Amino acid sequence: MKIIAIMTDFGYSEYVGIIKGVILKINPLVNIVDITHGIEKFDIRQAALVLYSSYKYFPHGTIFLVVIDPGVGTERRGVIIKTRDYYFIGPDNGIFSLVENVEKVIEIDHELFNASYTFHARDIFAPIAAYISKGACLRDFGKESKDIVRVLNLAKKRGRKIYGEIVYFDDFGNAITNIPSKFLNIKYGESLRLIKDENVYEIRFVKTYGYAREKELVCLIGSNDFVEISVNKGSAKEILKKKGPIILEL
Amino acid sequence: MKIIAIMTDFGYSEYVGIIKGVILKINPLVNIVDITHGIEKFDIRQAALVLYSSYKYFPHGTIFLVVIDPGVGTERRGVIIKTRDYYFIGPDNGIFSLVENVEKVIEIDHELFNASYTFHARDIFAPIAAYISKGACLRDFGKESKDIVRVLNLAKKRGRKIYGEIVYFDDFGNAITNIPSKFLNIKYGESLRLIKDENVYEIRFVKTYGYAREKELVCLIGSNDFVEISVNKGSAKEILKKKGPIILEL
Amino acid sequence: MKIIAIMTDFGYSEYVGIIKGVILKINPLVNIVDITHGIEKFDIRQAALVLYSSYKYFPHGTIFLVVIDPGVGTERRGVIIKTRDYYFIGPDNGIFSLVENVEKVIEIDHELFNASYTFHARDIFAPIAAYISKGACLRDFGKESKDIVRVLNLAKKRGRKIYGEIVYFDDFGNAITNIPSKFLNIKYGESLRLIKDENVYEIRFVKTYGYAREKELVCLIGSNDFVEISVNKGSAKEILKKKGPIILEL
Repeated sequence: MKIIAIMTDFGYSEYVGIIKGVILKINPLVNIVDITHGIEKFDIRQAALVLYSSYKYFPHGTIFLVVIDPGVGTERRGVIIKTRDYYFIGPDNGIFSLVENVEKVIEIDHELFNASYTFHARDIFAPIAAYISKGACLRDFGKESKDIVRVLNLAKKRGRKIYGEIVYFDDFGNAITNIPSKFLNIKYGESLRLIKDENVYEIRFVKTYGYAREKELVCLIGSNDFVEISVNKGSAKEILKKKGPIILEL
Repeated sequence: MKIIAIMTDFGYSEYVGIIKGVILKINPLVNIVDITHGIEKFDIRQAALVLYSSYKYFPHGTIFLVVIDPGVGTERRGVIIKTRDYYFIGPDNGIFSLVENVEKVIEIDHELFNASYTFHARDIFAPIAAYISKGACLRDFGKESKDIVRVLNLAKKRGRKIYGEIVYFDDFGNAITNIPSKFLNIKYGESLRLIKDENVYEIRFVKTYGYAREKELVCLIGSNDFVEISVNKGSAKEILKKKGPIILEL
Repeated sequence: MKIIAIMTDFGYSEYVGIIKGVILKINPLVNIVDITHGIEKFDIRQAALVLYSSYKYFPHGTIFLVVIDPGVGTERRGVIIKTRDYYFIGPDNGIFSLVENVEKVIEIDHELFNASYTFHARDIFAPIAAYISKGACLRDFGKESKDIVRVLNLAKKRGRKIYGEIVYFDDFGNAITNIPSKFLNIKYGESLRLIKDENVYEIRFVKTYGYAREKELVCLIGSNDFVEISVNKGSAKEILKKKGPIILEL
């Protein structure tokens, strides 16, 4: 049974249910799985990182329907991306920035659809996902294209300085960065300097929250294999306040 | 595979999971789909409009289990509604106000069930949905009835004035009205007057959020095909504050 | 089709989606059902009571994957519990306190898994659930153990006094206790005394919210068959403020 995995910023609204209805009307035998609908409204960068941390855990052949779409109804285009293992469908606004092994990009021809101006997830992207799950040919939906929009990169390391960013804060208030775990080649318990908005914090690198003192600001390797800045039984968001560039000095 | 689509105001609670357990115990082969569980607590009018905007996107034969039920355990009755294409099950308190093409109404005989006083979704409505998905006869659950409770109508148009209401605010803070899109027969970019609580607002009719200036109050056709009052990258709720009657002057 | 039912404190995050991806990669034919992901962060006692109120409604053979895991990455062990009718998998920190009819406990050998330090749900518990749904032998995952951690008991009754606790507040602000319904052998409409934090409240026992006066503090039998303290169209949480021990005097 084919899987369509959905990620949106629709929250707890009926828009998610409507999308599922549309898909099941076209292919009643597909397995629809929610990744999350809790992406912060319009946060394309968060969507890009969350997608990157999630998609490889799904079976080969999974079709990802990703809709964080502040520009719906304007000139931004929609795309279908075929990679070595997966399909991705959604607006081409940067949400697919970190998708790897791209083999083919199709620019969706919106004229093929009788679409509303505000709900392309329902009128264009969901039907395409459903038809692909039934074996449709990608070229039926538009012409091939060279590239996709990429707005987020992984962090860079120069010497003992890592130039990254806090991409978003998760539900627990942890600051999720774009710094791959392998950049942090130091030992558990060692300290490093975190520089943000001209503030400097001395923080420890710990194995898990459990090894941090209560309310201590620490960093660790998150479950997405990126560096995460956290406060044990507290919220890093309250301390660091906003997303944006950071420097880690090892 | 039969589909049972669920809409409630239970939020992120285990009550939704329990309902699914009950259904799967009776019919392990049914496909359960969440529409939304984010209806505002006890908001019957919102439920009626959201259901109306959602149900037609589901495959024929879908069974809708809808539970927004402030009067559970009191005298309000439960109903099964068979329409031309669908089944609807839930309390008869107005949540089915906008359901169309009604062919048959069954008043549920609560005496048939050993029900708690507070959780008819689990004890009465979910089992009925599951049995219907297995082909049960509707008359087994109660006697036929003439009518259902209807508490919400669509807006009325008289001359250049439209008498409608803000039924609810969605997750983005957009004001969702009961004014069908076809009432707004003016051009994109034209202005109209919105009257609410003795305040008058001059607002523009735009194609999508993308065409609004930042923080501008505008109206547009929402994805549910109703008029929606919105603030681009902001919240109409902060300006309009409360649900209730409005007048649009074209 | 086997059912895996999931309960976590992950909220609306992608962690839930990742878990589902992992499961479907191992067993594409399993039916995954969400119980709730709205358990309060790290609230083991709430998880124990909610699980107890939910699990018996699921079909025999259901596999429960329960992850509320403040101690992930520290010394706390993971367990598989086989009961007469079900399987339970998760950290052994008290979330299974009220599980009944235990037949076998397996202490999971973490060395068998190449696990991260922060996401055992993905790396250990979800794969085990998926393999069990395919018929794996429990002993493959570790050695048998005698006992599980239990941190929550049901309330005790002595004479006309019931010694219980408010375990959590639900989405509606109702105070959910560990007092079984049968302890409240009085008539609807009768009053009783609620003692909490040295405050004494005179409250009525009512059949349903519908029988309470607006804003009146009442108690009733909740849908989970436990005593619940509620305010009609209001929030008991605003009055009682915090979880913890209470005494009911009949």
